[in-house]
Amino acid sequence: MGRVTTRRRITKAVDGRLTTRPDTLVTEEPLEIRVGGRPLSITMRTPGNDFDLAAGFLVSEGVVHRSADVAGIRYCAGATDDGENTYNVLDVSLADGVAPPDPSVERNVYTTSSCGLCGKASLDAVRTQTRWDVAADPARFDLETVTELPDRLRQAQRVFDRTGGLHASGLFDRSGELLCLREDVGRHNAVDKVVGWALRERGLPLAGAVLMVSGRASFELVQKAVMAGIPALTAVSAPSSLAVDLAEETGLTLVGFLRGTSMNVYAGEHRLTLDAAATTG
Amino acid sequence: MGRVTTRRRITKAVDGRLTTRPDTLVTEEPLEIRVGGRPLSITMRTPGNDFDLAAGFLVSEGVVHRSADVAGIRYCAGATDDGENTYNVLDVSLADGVAPPDPSVERNVYTTSSCGLCGKASLDAVRTQTRWDVAADPARFDLETVTELPDRLRQAQRVFDRTGGLHASGLFDRSGELLCLREDVGRHNAVDKVVGWALRERGLPLAGAVLMVSGRASFELVQKAVMAGIPALTAVSAPSSLAVDLAEETGLTLVGFLRGTSMNVYAGEHRLTLDAAATTG
Repeated sequence: MGRVTTRRRITKAVDGRLTTRPDTLVTEEPLEIRVGGRPLSITMRTPGNDFDLAAGFLVSEGVVHRSADVAGIRYCAGATDDGENTYNVLDVSLADGVAPPDPSVERNVYTTSSCGLCGKASLDAVRTQTRWDVAADPARFDLETVTELPDRLRQAQRVFDRTGGLHASGLFDRSGELLCLREDVGRHNAVDKVVGWALRERGLPLAGAVLMVSGRASFELVQKAVMAGIPALTAVSAPSSLAVDLAEETGLTLVGFLRGTSMNVYAGEHRLTLDAAATTG
Repeated sequence: MGRVTTRRRITKAVDGRLTTRPDTLVTEEPLEIRVGGRPLSITMRTPGNDFDLAAGFLVSEGVVHRSADVAGIRYCAGATDDGENTYNVLDVSLADGVAPPDPSVERNVYTTSSCGLCGKASLDAVRTQTRWDVAADPARFDLETVTELPDRLRQAQRVFDRTGGLHASGLFDRSGELLCLREDVGRHNAVDKVVGWALRERGLPLAGAVLMVSGRASFELVQKAVMAGIPALTAVSAPSSLAVDLAEETGLTLVGFLRGTSMNVYAGEHRLTLDAAATTG
């Protein structure tokens, strides 16, 4: 492990002048996730917290809901012809009684809850799959606390400053305290790693928590938040139409363009309060 | 069609003051791509140029190489129970003699050329799959022309300004002339739409062209450039380690952090010249 960044010599051109210098890149490597020995998905990820990534991915897919659903996770040694362990293939053993992923799921990595028929069918699939009632979460968040989340996320980011190439995902409690931060070359992976950590350390649903992401809010990120029982998702950049649809449908609070003291609230605005007392009650 | 953006009422909070106002969101809808009636992949995309998206995706997967390999593409009417056409399912008919995608490919949408064993195996897969020798492309690009690409891309972007939620991909010729621009909620889709357009309008390989993307340069974007025979990929933001590995391995010129008059050249720097005459020769 410890391969989060890679050093390289690059050529830098400034105003037509070329110089060579060392540079730091974010590491990207494929990870194959197997369940019970059977390949389920391959994702391009930044190595590190791979077991959490796998567990969080299985939460998003509706396969596991609590820590005890996972009997064990291990790297597959000897996956290559020469028996070397690349740490890029891992196998998840599910606990007795936990149904393995639907084989039809294998075809559609990342978007298994969607179907091409229409956006409505995608929303229905998430609503029927999740076992958490996000709409019923009574959590309220103070506006001032929410405006501080981007700075808190950036201050905690370690690798981004060196490479500029990472997506970050941070889980905060109602008072704005950072519970878990993960960075990854893939935006979905950063969220899966946070959810996998939470499954192990806190249990689901993540009632009263808020998830902050460094980029845009897509349908799939809203889906991951809902599948983990998180009542609020905030993003630095724009949401998509289907992300807003899903947030409205499930009762998730969705905030975008969270910058400075300004934000756009696309759904669930009743959870945002101007009263600082709400965060300490 | 014509659903590139969606209007919504949102709540805007600035300095603790809440107002409601109309807002424009980028539309995100699932697209199911079938080949010969058999489902191959589902991607979350912005509607529009769907046939090009499907064709470009099949180029990236190594299934088609020239326009004549595609016998036809059509939306599947009656895909829903009530027979309605959602324009979210399409079927590609391959020409006689064109082998359909390997069934094992179906499992790994987005990363079919990767395997979890190691990054090296992913590089080997792309090298053996592509039929274009990008390294042999004699094209040279003037540094000054390259520095102008981000501005030209932004000026041509129509939807981004309104929604802030789109990735852009632009194909330019050696003199910096924009050949094709596509925007999409998914970064890979924007590139697939450009490649699908080029397959139809110009033919592959895209010798002498440069592809500019609005975000980061991942392994998969480099893979798509190489599979389309494009000799240079430039990005506004950072590349990953595996993206640089693949660029070096295939002879692609890879530029990142292209901002103002500055850029980082990660591979294939021999193609960049200070001589303006090189772009007109």
